Amino acid sequence: MPGMDTPFVQVQPDGDRYGRPSSGWRLRLYIVIFEADTRAGRLFDLTLIAAILTSVAVVLLDSMASLHARYGALFNVLEWFFTLAFTTEYIARLACVRHPTRYARSFYGVIDLLAVLPTYLAVLVPGLHALMDVRVLRLLRVFRILKLGEYVAEFGLLTQALAASRRKILVFLAFVMLVVLVMGTLMYVVEGPDNGFSSIPVSVYWAITTMTTVGFGDITPKTDLGRVIASMMMLLGWGTLAVPTGIVSAEFTVQRLPRETTTRTCHECLSEGHLPSARFCRDCGAPLPPWQQDARGRR
Amino acid sequence: MPGMDTPFVQVQPDGDRYGRPSSGWRLRLYIVIFEADTRAGRLFDLTLIAAILTSVAVVLLDSMASLHARYGALFNVLEWFFTLAFTTEYIARLACVRHPTRYARSFYGVIDLLAVLPTYLAVLVPGLHALMDVRVLRLLRVFRILKLGEYVAEFGLLTQALAASRRKILVFLAFVMLVVLVMGTLMYVVEGPDNGFSSIPVSVYWAITTMTTVGFGDITPKTDLGRVIASMMMLLGWGTLAVPTGIVSAEFTVQRLPRETTTRTCHECLSEGHLPSARFCRDCGAPLPPWQQDARGRR
Amino acid sequence: MPGMDTPFVQVQPDGDRYGRPSSGWRLRLYIVIFEADTRAGRLFDLTLIAAILTSVAVVLLDSMASLHARYGALFNVLEWFFTLAFTTEYIARLACVRHPTRYARSFYGVIDLLAVLPTYLAVLVPGLHALMDVRVLRLLRVFRILKLGEYVAEFGLLTQALAASRRKILVFLAFVMLVVLVMGTLMYVVEGPDNGFSSIPVSVYWAITTMTTVGFGDITPKTDLGRVIASMMMLLGWGTLAVPTGIVSAEFTVQRLPRETTTRTCHECLSEGHLPSARFCRDCGAPLPPWQQDARGRR
Amino acid sequence: MPGMDTPFVQVQPDGDRYGRPSSGWRLRLYIVIFEADTRAGRLFDLTLIAAILTSVAVVLLDSMASLHARYGALFNVLEWFFTLAFTTEYIARLACVRHPTRYARSFYGVIDLLAVLPTYLAVLVPGLHALMDVRVLRLLRVFRILKLGEYVAEFGLLTQALAASRRKILVFLAFVMLVVLVMGTLMYVVEGPDNGFSSIPVSVYWAITTMTTVGFGDITPKTDLGRVIASMMMLLGWGTLAVPTGIVSAEFTVQRLPRETTTRTCHECLSEGHLPSARFCRDCGAPLPPWQQDARGRR
Repeated sequence: MPGMDTPFVQVQPDGDRYGRPSSGWRLRLYIVIFEADTRAGRLFDLTLIAAILTSVAVVLLDSMASLHARYGALFNVLEWFFTLAFTTEYIARLACVRHPTRYARSFYGVIDLLAVLPTYLAVLVPGLHALMDVRVLRLLRVFRILKLGEYVAEFGLLTQALAASRRKILVFLAFVMLVVLVMGTLMYVVEGPDNGFSSIPVSVYWAITTMTTVGFGDITPKTDLGRVIASMMMLLGWGTLAVPTGIVSAEFTVQRLPRETTTRTCHECLSEGHLPSARFCRDCGAPLPPWQQDARGRR
Repeated sequence: MPGMDTPFVQVQPDGDRYGRPSSGWRLRLYIVIFEADTRAGRLFDLTLIAAILTSVAVVLLDSMASLHARYGALFNVLEWFFTLAFTTEYIARLACVRHPTRYARSFYGVIDLLAVLPTYLAVLVPGLHALMDVRVLRLLRVFRILKLGEYVAEFGLLTQALAASRRKILVFLAFVMLVVLVMGTLMYVVEGPDNGFSSIPVSVYWAITTMTTVGFGDITPKTDLGRVIASMMMLLGWGTLAVPTGIVSAEFTVQRLPRETTTRTCHECLSEGHLPSARFCRDCGAPLPPWQQDARGRR
Repeated sequence: MPGMDTPFVQVQPDGDRYGRPSSGWRLRLYIVIFEADTRAGRLFDLTLIAAILTSVAVVLLDSMASLHARYGALFNVLEWFFTLAFTTEYIARLACVRHPTRYARSFYGVIDLLAVLPTYLAVLVPGLHALMDVRVLRLLRVFRILKLGEYVAEFGLLTQALAASRRKILVFLAFVMLVVLVMGTLMYVVEGPDNGFSSIPVSVYWAITTMTTVGFGDITPKTDLGRVIASMMMLLGWGTLAVPTGIVSAEFTVQRLPRETTTRTCHECLSEGHLPSARFCRDCGAPLPPWQQDARGRR
Repeated sequence: MPGMDTPFVQVQPDGDRYGRPSSGWRLRLYIVIFEADTRAGRLFDLTLIAAILTSVAVVLLDSMASLHARYGALFNVLEWFFTLAFTTEYIARLACVRHPTRYARSFYGVIDLLAVLPTYLAVLVPGLHALMDVRVLRLLRVFRILKLGEYVAEFGLLTQALAASRRKILVFLAFVMLVVLVMGTLMYVVEGPDNGFSSIPVSVYWAITTMTTVGFGDITPKTDLGRVIASMMMLLGWGTLAVPTGIVSAEFTVQRLPRETTTRTCHECLSEGHLPSARFCRDCGAPLPPWQQDARGRR
């Protein structure tokens, strides 16, 4: 899905990507829904936040047996009310942008659809309506619209750091998967179904539980050999736990460190990246203009 | 509440903030209570530490059924004794400062009040008297008064590093909240009340238990699909665990790095990056302007 | 075992190490099996990946009681089919390289043998056939052959960072072992067999569970003293958890830092610290000797 | 105890600290026991390692009920044999050094005594003989004697990094203690003895279990409010877990980083710590000798 990989880094209102209509009721609707500079637009956003939070609260409360018994009917009405409201909003969004498919396929378009689908699906499969909760993800967009710029920038830095170490983390996860599969199989052979390791997938689940130091304790080794292997796995998990932390720490630290090289450009050969203290071009030997020696290169 | 955000960074006695009285019995009381330079003042502080520790010990011992059965009456007497003593002290503090409301609304003023309230409230709601334990927080002030200066400075560096990464951590927590809500709901739908996931809030509680790698094991997935989702959550939690650690690590590392170079510029040769303590240009030997020499360059 | 310590760092096809035959059917076989530049070679690799994944899936499914009851016979046939296929491949690999023993003793040679052994051993010891799963490790080689170069490089950096901190981690593990043995013994004495600490090895297993923050909860302290010791162990474990993470973080951070400056010296003005790629002195503009320009300065 | 704080940093044989005797049987004994340069000395050390490992293994095996039932008498004999041997060795060490009290009060002297005491004490208090295991700590010395120099250096770096962040970690522990006491009390009030939180000390134990993410699950919150508080504690524990890791990571990273300043000394004013690239003294403006611009300042 296009745009899905960088939903948080971008700071300007996302509506622009779907095409701002030029005039008429569509433009008026667009300004209210996608922009937050007018009174109506801001009111719309605040109403939306309130509606999202209320509807999520309704789902949470409805899931509690005692409250469901007493207020089930009310919760049901509210659920349908919010679902119809969000459906109307979704259709309005589709209607007022110039490229509806681009919106429908964007990160937030998918979230908006997922926010209303469960109620309709629950008519067929009753249990699903709790999934309506995913509409809480809609807050991501609203937060952005509300000009929480600085927070968004932090989010950008976070995702940037994670994205930079993406490959390392993937390689690491692949390695963990191999270890967990081999270790889980080993424990299945050693402990066997009698001690709760009922199948290899269950043993792998247990191995993940152990390596990540979660340790539910619903399945535990009973034999001596099993406990020896489990001990080694725990120590190994402890060690490997250090790897993703180390990767992310390094990323954050590098992000915070000063960049030794500057954007200084030699006027003769146009080469870049000279040290802040350099007086001559390292590529052609021509003198560098002294006024380039500024403070921005160093923190 | 004013002053609440930086209670540990400040090193001088906090009494100054509330106004030192100019003369009379209030000044004498002030010197004993808020200052630690006189014999009486130091004695007062030591007595206070002993009283706080003893009263907390009493609450701890009283909560143990076997000891309560035997010494309950004694503990009750001690509890009231300490509460009355701390109440007197609280009133004395209010009486001797020039701005009582400023004290009452400060971090330590609130703690001092919370330290005596539970005993009185327990007359109405019996269970509350255990909360008297919050008076242990009063030690924070006493530690400060006892000139444990270096430790306080460390605390200052710690809070400074945490404060610097405050926004990143908040953004991160918001993200975790979203993930935990969505994942908890998913598990509620997949596992259902029969397997212990009795409501969405309980499932969210379980999701937090799992993502933070605590893993009590009082609620555990029983279905295959639930275990697959739980496995993914654990690996995800493992990964996200790396984020706050990375943020704080980066902060501490940057804090520890020497800021060797400054933006000081030689007026003769315009070279930059001189040490904060340098008095002559390292490139041409010309004297550097002395007003450039400040302490802020070095930590 | 030679080559076992750096199986991931090397990027070129590993076959070269075992000797490429010069001509005949052995060369043709070698090109198909060990190289991936021809159509047949690539087809062979893809078939191998599919076969490995399928055979592992068969082992996983076969371990589930309900599926074993219904499809056990089919799974058995598939298992033997894959084992015979992999055995044939193993013999073919041995046959076509010039130094069969060098291959047989290499990291991947051992894996290839371990991938087929369990099925044969299971004829004698029934439970062992699940160990066939280790053949999933064969994917490591195939990934390499498929030119996933960048990922391999990441893996190389990971293993390099881990290798660099190998000794520190070993020393640390030895220390943890001592602590865990002493603490486990202490808990065995304090809690005793009645509270689940049935022997010192079991207590040591519990101590590892606790120090690594896994905390299964199958064995827990019941006495007051035991809980005090356990609390101290948990805080200690928390602290020591920081050590491997710190080691790896430091390693990754150092790896990520730019090595901006070298020991290159200008022959004219004897200034140092020029960028590895510099061709002229940044201080006097004189040309730097070109033989100083090597790649090792930059990572 | 003197010398107790830096037992691992020192590389030379520790015997020197206790005074090498000048001649006679004491010198011969000293050379065998405390030094490892002669054939007899090395033989003594290897015998000692074997004896320590064997005696620890005996304790471990003796603690297992099934083995104790069968070989209890043999284990008992072995235990007394090793204890008498180690006692003889302890007396021999005391006899041959010039300052026996200095040895008896040193780190290893205490360990050596603790290694033999439990067997004697077990005559009075039967359960104690398992504590004999602390003799495994004696390996620390033997490792050192065996010239595992590099590993010892790593240990030195580790302890150095930990020692450097000692104060920060103490402050942090004090903070955790306060949080854990307050949170434990809160949970005791909210959950109460009926849900397993039988007293405040037990609740504090639970709070430590939770904040360190161990999560045994023997005690878990049952009420809604208790679970909300527990959730907040887990997230808080997650965050605070980052602090010691961050401290140690920063320490290790700084330890690995190049030191920007060198030991360059100005020949005119004898000031030190000039930048590697400096050409003039920053304190008196005199030219610095160019041959000082060496590579050691940079890594």
